[in-house]
Amino acid sequence: MAKELKEVVNKEENYSQWYNNLVVKAGLAETSAVRGCMVIKPYGYAIWEKMHEVLDKMFKETGHQNAYFPLFIPKSFFSKEAHHVEGFAKECAVVTHYRLKNDPNGKGVIVDPEAKLEEELIVRPTSETIIWNTYKNWIQSYRDLPILCNQWANVVRWEMRTRLFLRTAEFLWQEGHTAHATREEAIEEAKRMINVYADFVQNWMAVPVIIGHKSENERFAGAEDTLTIEALMQDGKALQSGTSHFLGQNFAKAFDVTFANKEGKLDYVWATSWGVSTRLMGALIMAHSDNNGLVLPPKLAPIQVVMIPIYKGEDQLAEINVKLEEIASQLKELGISVKIDARDNVRSGFKFAEYELKGVPVRLAMGPRDLENGTIELMRRDTLEKETISREGIALHIKNLLDEIQQSIFNKALKFRESMITKVDTYDEFKKVLDEKGGFILAHWDGTVATEELIKEETKATIRCIPLDAPEEDGVCIVTGKPSKRRVLFARSY
Amino acid sequence: MAKELKEVVNKEENYSQWYNNLVVKAGLAETSAVRGCMVIKPYGYAIWEKMHEVLDKMFKETGHQNAYFPLFIPKSFFSKEAHHVEGFAKECAVVTHYRLKNDPNGKGVIVDPEAKLEEELIVRPTSETIIWNTYKNWIQSYRDLPILCNQWANVVRWEMRTRLFLRTAEFLWQEGHTAHATREEAIEEAKRMINVYADFVQNWMAVPVIIGHKSENERFAGAEDTLTIEALMQDGKALQSGTSHFLGQNFAKAFDVTFANKEGKLDYVWATSWGVSTRLMGALIMAHSDNNGLVLPPKLAPIQVVMIPIYKGEDQLAEINVKLEEIASQLKELGISVKIDARDNVRSGFKFAEYELKGVPVRLAMGPRDLENGTIELMRRDTLEKETISREGIALHIKNLLDEIQQSIFNKALKFRESMITKVDTYDEFKKVLDEKGGFILAHWDGTVATEELIKEETKATIRCIPLDAPEEDGVCIVTGKPSKRRVLFARSY
Repeated sequence: MAKELKEVVNKEENYSQWYNNLVVKAGLAETSAVRGCMVIKPYGYAIWEKMHEVLDKMFKETGHQNAYFPLFIPKSFFSKEAHHVEGFAKECAVVTHYRLKNDPNGKGVIVDPEAKLEEELIVRPTSETIIWNTYKNWIQSYRDLPILCNQWANVVRWEMRTRLFLRTAEFLWQEGHTAHATREEAIEEAKRMINVYADFVQNWMAVPVIIGHKSENERFAGAEDTLTIEALMQDGKALQSGTSHFLGQNFAKAFDVTFANKEGKLDYVWATSWGVSTRLMGALIMAHSDNNGLVLPPKLAPIQVVMIPIYKGEDQLAEINVKLEEIASQLKELGISVKIDARDNVRSGFKFAEYELKGVPVRLAMGPRDLENGTIELMRRDTLEKETISREGIALHIKNLLDEIQQSIFNKALKFRESMITKVDTYDEFKKVLDEKGGFILAHWDGTVATEELIKEETKATIRCIPLDAPEEDGVCIVTGKPSKRRVLFARSY
Repeated sequence: MAKELKEVVNKEENYSQWYNNLVVKAGLAETSAVRGCMVIKPYGYAIWEKMHEVLDKMFKETGHQNAYFPLFIPKSFFSKEAHHVEGFAKECAVVTHYRLKNDPNGKGVIVDPEAKLEEELIVRPTSETIIWNTYKNWIQSYRDLPILCNQWANVVRWEMRTRLFLRTAEFLWQEGHTAHATREEAIEEAKRMINVYADFVQNWMAVPVIIGHKSENERFAGAEDTLTIEALMQDGKALQSGTSHFLGQNFAKAFDVTFANKEGKLDYVWATSWGVSTRLMGALIMAHSDNNGLVLPPKLAPIQVVMIPIYKGEDQLAEINVKLEEIASQLKELGISVKIDARDNVRSGFKFAEYELKGVPVRLAMGPRDLENGTIELMRRDTLEKETISREGIALHIKNLLDEIQQSIFNKALKFRESMITKVDTYDEFKKVLDEKGGFILAHWDGTVATEELIKEETKATIRCIPLDAPEEDGVCIVTGKPSKRRVLFARSY
């Protein structure tokens, strides 16, 4: 087993360390010299690029355009929306000066005290304020609506406890910001986009999600309603994977953005915003991987098939390579990404472990006996099953296998998630399930912030969402015994 | 003529205002509430996206991978490379605090004095320092080399005088950072990438460039050699459009990045960096546009063909639309992007002016007579020539026409550029040409920084580059009369 792999701790032993080991050893990301900021390494970035590409296409197919807004936001902008400032302006990077100068007392450079900004600038933690200040000039009449913009950008939130991909001071994301003439249209947009996210996370990342509304307490700062998709990780904790907000007229009122409607009357504009981030990388890693390393769904794997020649001497390598190149070109014709690893300075066993660590969905290995027999050894990463198969018709076989793996990974995650949803009717049971089993808990809640906060304080579990498909069901709150109309979804979470 | 267009000043009258008008009126970009930071609007961003897509493909084809490094750089990193700190650390955005708090004296929020960073963070003006600090951990032996990374990112340089796209405090760019085992390999990489840039700018942007070395004075801060591509704008000023730097071992030494070579000896790693930015948008706009608006080369136009129905009443519109949709689907099959503008609230004349302003390469207009005759009116944006043609075989005709327009725009720019290169042999002539004609001037120079700076001070012209293809030619410096071996390229510049 490769040296890299040996240093990955088992997930049953220490889930959190297993995750960190994986991220670093598989070459996805690493910490940097700047507290809380990560370096996304080429292999990790290649996965993010695929996510970006697929999502961007989905956004465009639903009528959105990309644009770019400033990195900096004047401090005063945050005070304009009362909830927003509480949620975002507190833990943030503040630019106060615009120049350094040589240190008169010695080496290096110091901040030039004369280059102090009149108004401090905040490095965007999210862009509602600067964007609505811009939209003000774009909107006069209903004919200027809707505005359907998305931005791919970096944002900064000064998190105290950070973890690669899951919670970093700087992260990459996309933020959609739309402006509408009616409340209904904005609500519809917010729903459309949470469905786009669910589609992406389920059908590309192979991670099942539950769609629902956030409780008032967990809502985005400045939103009237927040829709969320919640995924379950293998340790039984939930991970919020994407959110879409109906912002009402809050930002329009804060930035005085009005429009003349069809009747010629002035009204405030209705808004949504929605985003997913590099946090999805964390979800992808944690949902599928095992103690051998990453398990990547084929649709997002930068390398879908790796081929390794097993040989003695240059002549044999050349012979095997001819065959591998043939298969590679057949696979490429089918749109499958392939890598042939013929490095001569590491042993095959090392390569096997390395590509298992990197989660490459299919591994082909070909030795002298295969050469004779017209066969090849195939291993699928998700199940680690090996078989020796004929090279006849192999390209199509692999194409179908990749589809099967994609589906199989999803099914496995879904089965696990289903097994980890527990209905409870008492607070004792609630606590017991949380501690002994984990996962999602469906329970009745009286709908108050006070109860929610009490539960959070006592159990560290929060309401992940009020599922869209939660059936009406009369019950009583597990804490207060007050009446409740439907169960909500609780979990401990990332 | 559309209202928007009327507000665009003629370029002969005021080139600078013409440029600004165009950028804003064509919906490419606008200034924001944050000094020096621009908003890139959807139409402008769509062009940048195309640039990004094409360049990214070129980088990957030349073996590069994307990665992402932190937005912030610890202040002390800048002091590690002596030239670099002089060049970059001075005019920059400095993060000094990480929290705001409610103002105890009243409304709003203030910077929390207790949340002061121990070491200030600089918003990256370029990423050599943070990247080489990272590469240190990636490189042990020659087997880890080369590293061929590229990053798409935003950077901030606190410019005092800003202009949309050309010089903004924040801009978007890509920066390649490569690490090599030998000097020769790094030099070759720097050359490869300046050629990639030249290929892109000439064959996609249709802007001819001159490739050359920067003089010592104009070199990137920290580079041993800077290669540049220089383009000429219609007002006779040069625009540096991309640079590629051979960094020697400067950053490896500054960040102590060594590797064991094949002989097992430790050596410092050799480096390059190279970048192009949203400044290319400025070059694209200024190189081709006219008093009617943008002229976009078809290969980068977000909309390549716009179709406008000329009609009276719903029935006629429906009839015309059927035909337009037919043509549109034929064009789309050939990979051509099309828009049908059937808005009923603006007149056709307004639409015509709008798409001229937006630089759409081909406009088709179809009225009742065309419907009868099987014809359509076609206008090409670059020459403004109109013709009525048969609808038979129109898709292929347009495909060929787009290629012709692409070539024609380049040829026109090349012809202009060629007419604007003047050889001079005296300083008087040099000044006269600069003032009366502008453009590039080829002149002999004694190779000293002092002479270069004198010329800059007296004429505002700088050495744009020492062209790669400059023939050896004995001459004397136009200022000092000292001997010179080849002419160098001067110009006033953006």
